[in-house]
Amino acid sequence: MSPTTDTPLLLSRLRSALPPEALLTDPAELAAHSRDSAPFSECGTPAVVAVPRTAEQVEHIMRTAYELGVPVVPQGARTGLAGAANAIDGCVVLSTAAMDEILSIDPANRLVRCQPGVTTRRLAQAVAEHGLTYPPDPASWERCTIGGNIATGAGGICCVKYGVTADYVLGLDLVLPDGRRMRTGRDTAKGVAGYDLTRLIVGSEGTLAVVVGATLALRPARPPALSLLAQFPSLTAAGDAVAAITAAGHTPSALELLDRATTEAIVELGHPLLRPGSAATLIVESDSADPAPDLAAMAVLCRKAGAHEVATSATSKEAYEIIEARRLVSPAIGRYMASRGGGLTAFIEDVAVPRTALPELIGQIEVIAERYGLKIFTLGHAGDGNLHPTVVFDESDADEFRRAQEAYDAIMAAGLELGGTTTGEHGIGTLKREWLERELGPVSLELQRGLKRLFDPKNLLNPGKVVTA
Amino acid sequence: MSPTTDTPLLLSRLRSALPPEALLTDPAELAAHSRDSAPFSECGTPAVVAVPRTAEQVEHIMRTAYELGVPVVPQGARTGLAGAANAIDGCVVLSTAAMDEILSIDPANRLVRCQPGVTTRRLAQAVAEHGLTYPPDPASWERCTIGGNIATGAGGICCVKYGVTADYVLGLDLVLPDGRRMRTGRDTAKGVAGYDLTRLIVGSEGTLAVVVGATLALRPARPPALSLLAQFPSLTAAGDAVAAITAAGHTPSALELLDRATTEAIVELGHPLLRPGSAATLIVESDSADPAPDLAAMAVLCRKAGAHEVATSATSKEAYEIIEARRLVSPAIGRYMASRGGGLTAFIEDVAVPRTALPELIGQIEVIAERYGLKIFTLGHAGDGNLHPTVVFDESDADEFRRAQEAYDAIMAAGLELGGTTTGEHGIGTLKREWLERELGPVSLELQRGLKRLFDPKNLLNPGKVVTA
Repeated sequence: MSPTTDTPLLLSRLRSALPPEALLTDPAELAAHSRDSAPFSECGTPAVVAVPRTAEQVEHIMRTAYELGVPVVPQGARTGLAGAANAIDGCVVLSTAAMDEILSIDPANRLVRCQPGVTTRRLAQAVAEHGLTYPPDPASWERCTIGGNIATGAGGICCVKYGVTADYVLGLDLVLPDGRRMRTGRDTAKGVAGYDLTRLIVGSEGTLAVVVGATLALRPARPPALSLLAQFPSLTAAGDAVAAITAAGHTPSALELLDRATTEAIVELGHPLLRPGSAATLIVESDSADPAPDLAAMAVLCRKAGAHEVATSATSKEAYEIIEARRLVSPAIGRYMASRGGGLTAFIEDVAVPRTALPELIGQIEVIAERYGLKIFTLGHAGDGNLHPTVVFDESDADEFRRAQEAYDAIMAAGLELGGTTTGEHGIGTLKREWLERELGPVSLELQRGLKRLFDPKNLLNPGKVVTA
Repeated sequence: MSPTTDTPLLLSRLRSALPPEALLTDPAELAAHSRDSAPFSECGTPAVVAVPRTAEQVEHIMRTAYELGVPVVPQGARTGLAGAANAIDGCVVLSTAAMDEILSIDPANRLVRCQPGVTTRRLAQAVAEHGLTYPPDPASWERCTIGGNIATGAGGICCVKYGVTADYVLGLDLVLPDGRRMRTGRDTAKGVAGYDLTRLIVGSEGTLAVVVGATLALRPARPPALSLLAQFPSLTAAGDAVAAITAAGHTPSALELLDRATTEAIVELGHPLLRPGSAATLIVESDSADPAPDLAAMAVLCRKAGAHEVATSATSKEAYEIIEARRLVSPAIGRYMASRGGGLTAFIEDVAVPRTALPELIGQIEVIAERYGLKIFTLGHAGDGNLHPTVVFDESDADEFRRAQEAYDAIMAAGLELGGTTTGEHGIGTLKREWLERELGPVSLELQRGLKRLFDPKNLLNPGKVVTA
């Protein structure tokens, strides 16, 4: 996109206000920072990877790139799954990895201020020492950063009860594409002064401004949780159980669904509670004040819906074993891939439908897997109607690669057809740009493009992501 | 602002697609629709009040006004307190009062679809019949509309636990200033497709688009609540109690603070539990699964902080009596005004600070009341740091009117000085436009104005509210 970058000039200008260690130009570093974790998505080679430590250094990078007309691609931990952090030829990759300070934890006002490069885990652990929780728990929480969570509007398992990243962002410290600094939002629990720029930035995938600081809301520590695991002879039965749990007014802190393929893969890996031969598995966690009777009531609902196996935890050790089944999804898929001789790609998809359409969507995904001759492991946040079908394929096999892409398209189409969205929590990036156009329609898309132009008139900040300018 | 409106032409064009009863031109109707409930705020006389029943009629009104260059001012129930619904000379007032259908209630997906003119109370009651709750509870909930709640980003008493209107809006059906229709958001629990236009519209006070439909999230019915009432010898002591309740990890469903003047006014009106002679009163409600021990623990914290009177409810009747003290604020202030001979204005202000700064702000408001020789009743959502100082003054007394305005300015300045915002939940309207500029700073303000121009390039939709174009 910008093969015209005058790299020596760019570097000399950047060096005027950045220490040498903040500018990486080694080809191996450039390659390592060329993309996030999404397959199918185009990427380029950056001219330089800038690793600033302060907001002032970010201002300098942005001003310099703006003046020279060089695109800038912000990157967190590159755990994203939509290509939103993929480099462009000749760009500056702006890594927030070194901006990893937790600036203050304020228990009395239940908020934390931090730089964008703090990992979600470190933030969660730091506030836990003050008896507080930062709930959002994306699967990559050990490595992903708060800045990346904000950029993608990240979700996670406990969102079904506690909400997503967007619900915790009170205020942001930003650097605009032209290098100007600004704040959005507030340090107060409530506030409605002006248009909500904070929420506009959340989920904007680094295309409108660079987040250099965030004020996040916290909650009191979560009570100890208990869990149940229920296996069903059909997807419909599992869907009925989810509906019954919802209708009865329960608010579980996790409500996860594994399809047949995923259940079998975990059984083969070995799990003390999971039995072979079921079409779907539900994992339910409750951290209510008194979770045991809540889970007992939900276990009854699962059995009524047709569950043939139901295991309820009585201790936190048993609860851990149950939740462990969810944590084993990745290793179980990895084991399957190794059994096929390795060298395969596992692409974790993301689609969300109204909660009640979930069993229908899973059923359609099974049909799609069969039609395209692919192994697809589907698991999902059943309580949110958010599914992650993981398509396993061999990138080096041109036909299988094509089938994987077509299966992906078919899954997106099925999600939209069922009244859903093409992304529940992973984002648009480069990967779903065409799907975004289909999902939003022309009027909304025109406004989305207008927003991009308003913030970034030169189209230099992460161009080509989310919308084309 | 538009004294040039060709009213006969406007009316004939509007009549081409609207029934006669949808167009009010009687001078009494025009006057009745000239303003919302905010004093100090300029307003004009509309050319016509349009009362459409359908989104298609709204499209026609917007297209017509756009073609003729006539400003349009959307109105809900005119209970707003910032002048955001005030008419402009020669404008079309677009009242959503007749768009009051609840389109569908979907218990399995916990959502409701409705037109904008449904009152908050009717919506809450309708979903309650399905065992569900729509929590936002602004003080005017019996009369205010969902459309107005969305436009202002309305809060309420239970927000401290359940969040504000913005947290419940999943998707919107909109008509843009040029009459084009579009949807934002989704019917799914999660979704991050594109920039968050839904949240941009929430709180935009009818300046970006007209809301013609909304999809709102619901929660399971709230459990029965119990309450406590604690009276303190000083504001500091009450503030300490709020801090201790927060620090101990409680999540009350109401945490309301009354200052000395408000407490005395309710005592004079008569309340079985409230005693005279305290500097501050806390009203705490809990709807946790087992509220009695939670409230007992919070009562201990209140006593430790110095409360000289603490009453805890053991039954829902007693809980009602306690919450009744909060409900008596309006009648109590009304009684005080009557005792001064009537003809006075009570202006309910709105300012929010970090929770811990609340006692300091209340103290400063007491000083301000004394300095300007005014009666100010302050009550607030202590758990949110959101205060409503009610300034009582005689509009016909030029000096008192000036002092009321100056006191209002002083309160806003104190709020900002303490790290707060000039509006926690009432909005900017015309009343706080200058304060918005001070609060946001020039860079953010420029973007806010750019957003307005993007949605409304002719500056015809509720011009002059929130930001000047």
